[in-house]
Amino acid sequence: MNHRPAEFLDGVRPIAWDAQAGRLRLLDQRLLPARVEWLAVGDCAATADAIRDMVVRGAPAIGITAAYGVALAARDRYRANAGTWREAIEDDLSRLAAARPTAVNLVWAVAHMRGLCAGIDGDPFPLLVAEAERLHAADIAANRRMGALGAELIESRCAVLTHCNAGALATGGYGTALGVVRSLWSAGRLERVYADETRPWLQGARLTAWELVEEGIPVSLIADGAAGWAMRSGKVEWVIVGADRIAANGDVANKIGTCAVAACARRFGVRFMVAAPTSTIDRDCPTGEAIPIENRNPEELLRFGTTRTAAPGAEAWNPVFDVTPADLVDAIVTERGVVRAPDTACIGRLFT
Amino acid sequence: MNHRPAEFLDGVRPIAWDAQAGRLRLLDQRLLPARVEWLAVGDCAATADAIRDMVVRGAPAIGITAAYGVALAARDRYRANAGTWREAIEDDLSRLAAARPTAVNLVWAVAHMRGLCAGIDGDPFPLLVAEAERLHAADIAANRRMGALGAELIESRCAVLTHCNAGALATGGYGTALGVVRSLWSAGRLERVYADETRPWLQGARLTAWELVEEGIPVSLIADGAAGWAMRSGKVEWVIVGADRIAANGDVANKIGTCAVAACARRFGVRFMVAAPTSTIDRDCPTGEAIPIENRNPEELLRFGTTRTAAPGAEAWNPVFDVTPADLVDAIVTERGVVRAPDTACIGRLFT
Repeated sequence: MNHRPAEFLDGVRPIAWDAQAGRLRLLDQRLLPARVEWLAVGDCAATADAIRDMVVRGAPAIGITAAYGVALAARDRYRANAGTWREAIEDDLSRLAAARPTAVNLVWAVAHMRGLCAGIDGDPFPLLVAEAERLHAADIAANRRMGALGAELIESRCAVLTHCNAGALATGGYGTALGVVRSLWSAGRLERVYADETRPWLQGARLTAWELVEEGIPVSLIADGAAGWAMRSGKVEWVIVGADRIAANGDVANKIGTCAVAACARRFGVRFMVAAPTSTIDRDCPTGEAIPIENRNPEELLRFGTTRTAAPGAEAWNPVFDVTPADLVDAIVTERGVVRAPDTACIGRLFT
Repeated sequence: MNHRPAEFLDGVRPIAWDAQAGRLRLLDQRLLPARVEWLAVGDCAATADAIRDMVVRGAPAIGITAAYGVALAARDRYRANAGTWREAIEDDLSRLAAARPTAVNLVWAVAHMRGLCAGIDGDPFPLLVAEAERLHAADIAANRRMGALGAELIESRCAVLTHCNAGALATGGYGTALGVVRSLWSAGRLERVYADETRPWLQGARLTAWELVEEGIPVSLIADGAAGWAMRSGKVEWVIVGADRIAANGDVANKIGTCAVAACARRFGVRFMVAAPTSTIDRDCPTGEAIPIENRNPEELLRFGTTRTAAPGAEAWNPVFDVTPADLVDAIVTERGVVRAPDTACIGRLFT
């Protein structure tokens, strides 16, 4: 498309490292699709704020952003005091890791970068920023691999349904669930994507529809309530979603609404695929019971933008993730391979 | 509450017959909860427009409104030509019946009023308006009966979930699903109502929350996607919804999203109750397959108010009703009694 920004010539990318300025540039996802604006993030505190305030969202994208945030923190702590930076950075790491609770990729990335810090002599910045860039590139490569593996699971040309945005915008690029969609599309085996609008934040309407339209993939937006009916009336053969954290037994935390979509898929004969990198699997969580579920501000439901939609006096309950029981999941697709009918044993084999 | 308008001293009522002015007054539900405004409807064409444009909505309320519309049509046709009014009114009846496709109460009410026309000598208006008022009062009485019967099904104090608005605003008054809620509340047996916001028209946020707050009943608004998680995490014991048309076998057409809620209820061990008057049962529809499902303007999903939310180029699929298979329904509550595990035989017994 002729309005495609230079940043997207290689596909939509939500995160860009500006080596010259020594800062991170984040596509401000709060403004999409109305405006394509980049936010410059120059230090660790601003990185944590950007994660908390959802400038960037999606478990893999949050992890990559946090990795760059650790590099920025190390640079600034080292400049302030080259002798104590390794101790001083602990506050920054804690702040980054606590920015949002549910996505395990955030904790994973911070722990990974922290592990590197121990072995560094001298200025830690060049090594850490190179590692963040490597994680970023590896994420895109993992998504392409998942895209291919997920597409192989689908026997014939069909329409699929997705919930929230597990696309390029939620990752380093290419996407997890939408990576499978892109792979199907480029193979000529995708009819159409039905995208749940995904209240309250409208990731489906604002982000998924935007990135699919960018690539010319046919997309029909539907109300979240229409997902069950789309399945019941035979519109789609597969549901494909991402994940924010997968427990050791295969229970899947993902955007609120996912467990309802999975229950409908099982009831109405549609198959349910989760695409997520192995960094999303939290082997320290035995089941979904142990996954912390973020509750966000009830105002997200009581208002739309600046317009109050609900009656004054009404309360709201606004959990933004839920947990889909493993027995409702037909397949988990990772960059290391596919797990069908997930359980603790077969998920464990991904790591051997 | 001290701001309660005079019209609501006897409870929220969406329809009022103004005998002095000889016209219908409809609470404009498009403006709630921001403004409580009444629209004066003086003839049949305006009545049909008000139904089509959703000034008034909800299957029983549409039926009652149409009955008044028939009275207005008869008055005007009789005044125009006392000799031919019965033939001339046929166009009006067709127009009313076609205003919206899914709710069978509309067709039922028009057919019922048409049947009366045959036997009238002289000015039909007094008799027809009296019949519309009788239907209106009978609807409220039926709702109170359903409220009592539905509440009896629920063994102990609990929280319930509802979808869309099957309240006073959707009926002559008191409500079907919310009639059961009111009955539970007045018996001290209701903890809280979880109300799906019900995109795209936000009947839950705008209407259900409004009428429950009006009566001091605790209500938590949730995203439509959160209904499954509310059930999975044990927040509610029952789902209670209304219906727009029930097929002879117990398949239930209701607001888009209902079949997904029902599938989740079954999966997650929550019981599912439908409260609807027998005028909602269409014995000419053997199953839900025969129920016409209204598709409304895709713009309802692509925009929110005047704000475009979806990416330019995205399409939308906007069915506003769906059909819940009878086997997912634990009980249908009517003014004539309760049908558990509905099928054609036990629904038929309601009519003997």
